[in-house]
Amino acid sequence: MAMATAKLVLLMVLVAGSSSGGSAWGPLMSRLRMPTARSPVEVAKERLQEDYVVSAAAPLIHALRPLLGSAGDLGRRAGVPCDSWRLAVETYNKRDWTTVPASCERYVGHYMLGGHYRRDSRVVIDEAIAYAEGLKLGGNGKEVWVFDIDETSLSNLPYYATHGFGTKLYNATSFNEYVLEGSAPVLPETQRLFKKLVSLGIKPVFLTGRTEDQRAITVTNLRRQGYSGWMTLLLKPVGLKATAIAYKSGERQKLQDAGYVIVGNIGDQWSDILGAPEGARTFKLPDPLYYIG
Amino acid sequence: MAMATAKLVLLMVLVAGSSSGGSAWGPLMSRLRMPTARSPVEVAKERLQEDYVVSAAAPLIHALRPLLGSAGDLGRRAGVPCDSWRLAVETYNKRDWTTVPASCERYVGHYMLGGHYRRDSRVVIDEAIAYAEGLKLGGNGKEVWVFDIDETSLSNLPYYATHGFGTKLYNATSFNEYVLEGSAPVLPETQRLFKKLVSLGIKPVFLTGRTEDQRAITVTNLRRQGYSGWMTLLLKPVGLKATAIAYKSGERQKLQDAGYVIVGNIGDQWSDILGAPEGARTFKLPDPLYYIG
Repeated sequence: MAMATAKLVLLMVLVAGSSSGGSAWGPLMSRLRMPTARSPVEVAKERLQEDYVVSAAAPLIHALRPLLGSAGDLGRRAGVPCDSWRLAVETYNKRDWTTVPASCERYVGHYMLGGHYRRDSRVVIDEAIAYAEGLKLGGNGKEVWVFDIDETSLSNLPYYATHGFGTKLYNATSFNEYVLEGSAPVLPETQRLFKKLVSLGIKPVFLTGRTEDQRAITVTNLRRQGYSGWMTLLLKPVGLKATAIAYKSGERQKLQDAGYVIVGNIGDQWSDILGAPEGARTFKLPDPLYYIG
Repeated sequence: MAMATAKLVLLMVLVAGSSSGGSAWGPLMSRLRMPTARSPVEVAKERLQEDYVVSAAAPLIHALRPLLGSAGDLGRRAGVPCDSWRLAVETYNKRDWTTVPASCERYVGHYMLGGHYRRDSRVVIDEAIAYAEGLKLGGNGKEVWVFDIDETSLSNLPYYATHGFGTKLYNATSFNEYVLEGSAPVLPETQRLFKKLVSLGIKPVFLTGRTEDQRAITVTNLRRQGYSGWMTLLLKPVGLKATAIAYKSGERQKLQDAGYVIVGNIGDQWSDILGAPEGARTFKLPDPLYYIG
């Protein structure tokens, strides 16, 4: 609370004597989806890395969104209660949707770029860490924790910020181009859990819908973003037609058959979590950008 | 949206020329947990029954809470991000909690009594109805839909509004006294689903953690609130020690063994929903008041 107040004061001071921040009125402007003077790619990255420290970028982020984040009237625009829509998505009441409602683009943008997404994620990770710290381990090094990658360990927010925050139909070509850049930033909250688990002796396993042909760039991206010490990285065979639930639960079954105990499982999609064996405890990170069934 | 605007205008007009509404500065005042001139029992009941029609009670409800409901700064009070806490509860990330954080009492109160709870519930029910209408029925009358009762078909908000909105430890004595009044108001959204299902030929089944000795008053309460046409009401045997998940999934299994097809299942707790057979599709209504494991 004191920190929030200090941040607010700092923001006001910085805004009052604001400098331009010196970037980005460039060619990316034509792709902008949010009312900001900077590239949403930059904003998204910095916002993820900000980690509650006021950086030089703060006034610009403040200009991008009000301190209320996705609260206030944004939830009531254009007849679609976007906050209720988001809750229905997160609670698995809303399924098989293809795009974010067009009228919720601003809402989702503000939710993701503002403090709300980070705050929601932090509470999930705090709970996961409290759970992990309370575990009694067998001492045989067999406990593992399954991590999804996209929107769980790494964030594709820089991509979605330039593609309508989920309001546009999925474009595999442009998304895979983005993946192959290997530039996806870390989700700092998830990394905090990852490092805690490694220190406790619980082995992280990455289990992703990314395909085998993306292995090298995925490893590069994970390492660039500070991940190390995982036990294995499981990618989907190219051309496999299984649903995410069938594929992922099958891989978890193999881990279990090999003698591992899945003490935890974290993802941003319900399809990361559902399907036996789920793991002893599951954690669902927020993701209002897309749905994978 | 037009309706929301009309409502706002009406509210302003009514507030400008406000009358007292003529009630409730009585003995209940000593039990008030929210800054309101009226009994929260009355407010909670009327708020549930309001159903997006501006009634004479509207200005008083408006006085109780700002139109923003639980949005705005309430989510950031006292170091606990109450909106993130609520999301973690609804997504089953937060489990086994005993009470709402004390600092979130106002937040939860405003969430429940304001438009937010109703709006979130409406989106869930809209989804459930769309799903039900899309079902191809067998024509043999074997399709059933399982309804939880408390905080799903009936609301105990009048009780919780006078007991700290979940911030106080559960008191079985006073809660059961309240149940035996048979005065719990309907959740209008759930009743809309219930009536739709009956009209479609899908049979509602009530499955509740209430015990057999509460059968008569439960039936009375349901009928008083406009429920009729259910197939059966399943109550927990007095003294049964099973968890909610074990008890409820066991009862669903019996339904299935008897040849019924559970096309849907709705509750406010994850323990209403988890445990095979879950039903072909599950729906989770909001409940930030308490946790049943």
